[in-house]
Amino acid sequence: MMLEKRTTDFLEELSSGAAVPGGGGASAAVGAFAAALGMMVTNLTIGKKKYADVEGEIKKIRDKLASLRDELVILTDRDAAAFEPLSKAYGLPKETEEQKEAKERIMEQALYTAGKVPMQIMETVLKVMDQLRTLGEKGSRLAVSDVGVGLLFAQAALEGASLNVFINTKMMKNRERADEMNARTEEMIAQGHRLKEEIYAGVLEKIK
Amino acid sequence: MMLEKRTTDFLEELSSGAAVPGGGGASAAVGAFAAALGMMVTNLTIGKKKYADVEGEIKKIRDKLASLRDELVILTDRDAAAFEPLSKAYGLPKETEEQKEAKERIMEQALYTAGKVPMQIMETVLKVMDQLRTLGEKGSRLAVSDVGVGLLFAQAALEGASLNVFINTKMMKNRERADEMNARTEEMIAQGHRLKEEIYAGVLEKIK
Repeated sequence: MMLEKRTTDFLEELSSGAAVPGGGGASAAVGAFAAALGMMVTNLTIGKKKYADVEGEIKKIRDKLASLRDELVILTDRDAAAFEPLSKAYGLPKETEEQKEAKERIMEQALYTAGKVPMQIMETVLKVMDQLRTLGEKGSRLAVSDVGVGLLFAQAALEGASLNVFINTKMMKNRERADEMNARTEEMIAQGHRLKEEIYAGVLEKIK
Repeated sequence: MMLEKRTTDFLEELSSGAAVPGGGGASAAVGAFAAALGMMVTNLTIGKKKYADVEGEIKKIRDKLASLRDELVILTDRDAAAFEPLSKAYGLPKETEEQKEAKERIMEQALYTAGKVPMQIMETVLKVMDQLRTLGEKGSRLAVSDVGVGLLFAQAALEGASLNVFINTKMMKNRERADEMNARTEEMIAQGHRLKEEIYAGVLEKIK
């Protein structure tokens, strides 16, 4: 897995002109950072007398965030894998009519696949934000800045992934399908904004 | 160095209840991701005929981003190092008047140090954003989504670091010094917002 490399090596590959990892995979990684920060908050809450009442709930959040984090780690790889067929499709010949048609058909499918993975990243990140909301309300107040940082990371991951939907849908010939994907993506961006607005002001109030 | 670990191990440590790494160090790491994405854009621009006119400038941007990225990798460690004296200061005894005074003095210095490093992270991230601005204008159009993702990451890193200034200045007794740090931090947040607004709309326009 890509994120099993040293971070400095991952950064080096991200910096290079190689096709992968790109902005989509990096967004999944930053989403995983957001989930990890949420987990930190749960770990700073669990076992504290002051928060004994909510301990059961916080433990469940920890478990959920752990699996969301691990999903996002896997999605970093999946994003790279989804880019490969697209990268190959670009290189297909288009000299004869038959080749042109085949290339167009293969490109269309590859664009769809390459756009679908960042949508999955967005869905997963929204679930992370949902857990962060509860942590902002019920988690240890001493760790509220980490809820805030997690939120900021999640929003960047969400919108970063969205850009990687749009670059693919833009080139799709099947506009109906592209429009559907774009609409769902815009909806998720709006949902993220709402969630952030709901939580971030409260977090800032506790910090400043 | 922390980021010389596997990313999955870094995520595991971030998830734990251990004192470091925390939100400040994670912000530096996400800032390094932003710089790496900018470098990717330079590497996809350099050597392309279409961009031959700006090649010299783009190469300079690559060099600048490489050193900013490496600086941010180091700042992840520096943030952890700055937290250590604070963590120790909390544990100091305060039974006698003398001990109380000593603890207060040491705490004050430790809070200052712990607040200063995230300010350095912010300054470095703003420099990354500045380079991304030029890349959005002059870099390969094919990689403009990566400029966008870089910007989103940079803004999250900038604001994430700011929260780690505020949690420290909040507890400082020297309010004059705390207010100065807060004012500079707010100024940097505003600068980041301006930079993002200037660039992001143009990026989106090219993508959608």
